[in-house]
Amino acid sequence: MPSKKRKRAHNQAMQRYAKQRQRNLLATPGAHDFIVVMDSLKAGFNIPKILRSAEVFGAHEVHLINIGPFDPAAAKGAFKNVPARFFDEFSECHANLQERGYTIFALEAGTANLLADIELPVKSAFVFGHEEFGLSFDPDDYPDIQGLSIPQFGNIESLNVSVAASIVMYEYVRSR
Amino acid sequence: MPSKKRKRAHNQAMQRYAKQRQRNLLATPGAHDFIVVMDSLKAGFNIPKILRSAEVFGAHEVHLINIGPFDPAAAKGAFKNVPARFFDEFSECHANLQERGYTIFALEAGTANLLADIELPVKSAFVFGHEEFGLSFDPDDYPDIQGLSIPQFGNIESLNVSVAASIVMYEYVRSR
Repeated sequence: MPSKKRKRAHNQAMQRYAKQRQRNLLATPGAHDFIVVMDSLKAGFNIPKILRSAEVFGAHEVHLINIGPFDPAAAKGAFKNVPARFFDEFSECHANLQERGYTIFALEAGTANLLADIELPVKSAFVFGHEEFGLSFDPDDYPDIQGLSIPQFGNIESLNVSVAASIVMYEYVRSR
Repeated sequence: MPSKKRKRAHNQAMQRYAKQRQRNLLATPGAHDFIVVMDSLKAGFNIPKILRSAEVFGAHEVHLINIGPFDPAAAKGAFKNVPARFFDEFSECHANLQERGYTIFALEAGTANLLADIELPVKSAFVFGHEEFGLSFDPDDYPDIQGLSIPQFGNIESLNVSVAASIVMYEYVRSR
């Protein structure tokens, strides 16, 4: 794309973000109690895709930690509809979830806790880290957080993060 | 991107496609018996993402119907590893699957057959259509094909197709 055109596309994306973030203040929780936490994900396509699945599966809300403006187009409107809370650091999100009685699971490939083997409490929060860099915090600093992984079989290291998040939401809904 | 640079990137993607399609001839089936059918999907990011999940969940093979060359980069190598069969028309894929004793499910939002409610046979094949245009065929012409849908809750019409395909693969593996 020529740079002028690209700049215009970028500005339009940022306008969509500002507008939908404003509309988000009126969003109401979905049919279920689970919360999805996006921990320092790249401001690319995965965030709007996770928002889209969060709406489809009736998430209570989503938490965005240290995530700047992104193009919400691929969320198909979900950024307006799923209540979003913004935090600068994971510690603030953690304090909020703990205060509200949430059990916190962090998705980590290879953890012994397999999705579908463990019972997910009504008040479950699921944390997904950056595709390359993983979680923004050291799980050892939060002994209350439980690891969680999806059974995998092939040679590739892991599922795409928006796919993994969607499977976890599906499983939460299916299992109750 | 300036047009010269874009052309070079396109050529590199096509080279990756040709190389990996060649390597695919040596691919061996995954740990499970299910087959994923991509019916006339856009040659964009969804195909490599479905391939990536197909490898992770140990698909037996994938069928690509009326799909031209695509950039396999986002498949993280899965296009080399999951046996792929190419068909021009769905009818050929259907004949192949029927001959081999497969039960064929076509994902359609709103179908009464809910994933997780029905029992998936060992030899299950799952057909996913184009994100906008749906299936390339009229399901009424194939009375043996069963509709299948994922329980959904929000206002948005449906899940992204690579997410939906991944959830179906997860559920197949989970349920056995």
